[in-house]
Amino acid sequence: MSLQQTIASMLPAVEDELKAVVERTVRPTYPELRGMLTYHLGWEGEGAGPEAQGKRIRPMMVLLCAAASGADWKAALPAAAAVELLHNFSLIHDDIQDNSPLRRGRKTVWVRWGIAQAINAGDVMFTQAFSALHRLAETVSPAAALEAHQVLQETCLRLTEGQYLDIAYESCPVIPMEDYWPMVGGKTSALLGCCAELGALAAGVNEARRAAFREFGYKLGLAFQVQDDWLGIWGDAALTGKSTESDLVSGKKTLPVLIGLERSPQFRARWEAGPVQPDEIGEAIKCLDAVEAGALALAEAEKLTGQAMAALAIAVPQAELRDELNELSAGLLKRKK
Amino acid sequence: MSLQQTIASMLPAVEDELKAVVERTVRPTYPELRGMLTYHLGWEGEGAGPEAQGKRIRPMMVLLCAAASGADWKAALPAAAAVELLHNFSLIHDDIQDNSPLRRGRKTVWVRWGIAQAINAGDVMFTQAFSALHRLAETVSPAAALEAHQVLQETCLRLTEGQYLDIAYESCPVIPMEDYWPMVGGKTSALLGCCAELGALAAGVNEARRAAFREFGYKLGLAFQVQDDWLGIWGDAALTGKSTESDLVSGKKTLPVLIGLERSPQFRARWEAGPVQPDEIGEAIKCLDAVEAGALALAEAEKLTGQAMAALAIAVPQAELRDELNELSAGLLKRKK
Repeated sequence: MSLQQTIASMLPAVEDELKAVVERTVRPTYPELRGMLTYHLGWEGEGAGPEAQGKRIRPMMVLLCAAASGADWKAALPAAAAVELLHNFSLIHDDIQDNSPLRRGRKTVWVRWGIAQAINAGDVMFTQAFSALHRLAETVSPAAALEAHQVLQETCLRLTEGQYLDIAYESCPVIPMEDYWPMVGGKTSALLGCCAELGALAAGVNEARRAAFREFGYKLGLAFQVQDDWLGIWGDAALTGKSTESDLVSGKKTLPVLIGLERSPQFRARWEAGPVQPDEIGEAIKCLDAVEAGALALAEAEKLTGQAMAALAIAVPQAELRDELNELSAGLLKRKK
Repeated sequence: MSLQQTIASMLPAVEDELKAVVERTVRPTYPELRGMLTYHLGWEGEGAGPEAQGKRIRPMMVLLCAAASGADWKAALPAAAAVELLHNFSLIHDDIQDNSPLRRGRKTVWVRWGIAQAINAGDVMFTQAFSALHRLAETVSPAAALEAHQVLQETCLRLTEGQYLDIAYESCPVIPMEDYWPMVGGKTSALLGCCAELGALAAGVNEARRAAFREFGYKLGLAFQVQDDWLGIWGDAALTGKSTESDLVSGKKTLPVLIGLERSPQFRARWEAGPVQPDEIGEAIKCLDAVEAGALALAEAEKLTGQAMAALAIAVPQAELRDELNELSAGLLKRKK
């Protein structure tokens, strides 16, 4: 079976599991409360549909890791639902924190229902993420359910730590390099590491292999993030699309920028003087190229990808069982903006 | 030992448990993030001290219920920390939702660090509440820790449901009576019921007695809330204090008001016409008195107290073991605003 076929067979089961969690946790007496959640998850309301639901990459990671461990992926469905709910809780709160009016082309929850209700809707979904894990006691064992809670909590702590740094550095043009990794690590990587670990946990693999799964997901997430940083400056959209799409204009503290700040006094002087204007992008990129900021960032992404793949080889010793995870990783890392 | 002595012996252990959770979950690398939490918990920053910490009633309820079940209350400390952290998470988010600048006489977290950081600080404390439960695996058993997670999650769902109703009805002068109970139930009662149940769970009592403990806490919480409603109109502060302290002026949808709306067309007409002014309080109270709204509310509080005490007698069959919980309940219900 190809990865596409595997994913196509898993996706409806994930949606069913998600819907079952929402139904059993929010009483039908409060249709509007339930409506905020089903709207955000892309099931109902204006613009609902697959596009609004996103790719459900995180639950797929859980299920593929469970399958690669030799288990029936269906046993890991409660964990798959948990990570997707956790991801979506963080999006609801992020959108308030970032003042974002749109998410996947649709109005964000806070725009539709106000900040107070949106904070609360996020809190409901946060709770649901943990509630989802309980069914692991049926599909795997109570011990696995308890351990999964611990893994998910640890992930929440890293997510909120990353979010703290992100907000703290918002109005600050420069961040120390040592805060870059926990900041981006808290975004994509901590949760991807959690996905891989929970898949392995549901499959009952031993501690050492579970740690290797977590490392695989975590490093893959970092590689993805660093590549995203590169694309934000040298990618097609940033270069040929509307110039405002360049991360240089939005002032994002990406890895190439931090390298540029360390290595190019000229770039640092310009960056610290205030926002880069669209007509200055070419000049700024020249500064970065002169100190190989892009090449160094790409090399970092390559290194991280290598570490992720090495961890995967420990997590899943039989090469043929790694095929789908290899393909998923390649798809993640090759995607264009 | 008197209740005061018992509480005095438990309080330092609760603070230690809380501090241990905060220390093990937030890395010292981020002192500011940790600082938001220790500030809110009343340990640090301007105005820190016992006054800022509150009475820690909820953890006391956990520990006293564990003790009344014949267990060593120390085994229940992880659960005591969990409920206090959950309570405080909800306060951090409440203060944003209600736009409250002060809490226990100190600036609220969102006023000091902004809304974005305050949402995140609440999310951290939410996670910590669940993290706190894990130590139950050591003090009691892994099975108890897993069950405690489920109890706490169920409570979060009721809290967020109550919060949803509270926000939804904010700009609405009248609410249906059937929404009054889940709304107030989600505030004090669900969490007090959870406290009593977790204390019993940590003591290893059977399902039936655990349910009786939960009922005791829940009904006690409702009785407290209804009495609070009564005090908000007929209490000393409302009558003789600044008249703006009257719930009639703030437009709060309390039980006496809902009874008045049902039974007095005159009161309903005035209430629906817009906010009651301080100089109209006397007239409004006359309307309520004419239909016995206050007396009916007090009778409801009495009924609920009776139900709470009946549940307690099932939860703790030996009368002498109920002394401290009886005293705690009496203290809660007799307190003046």
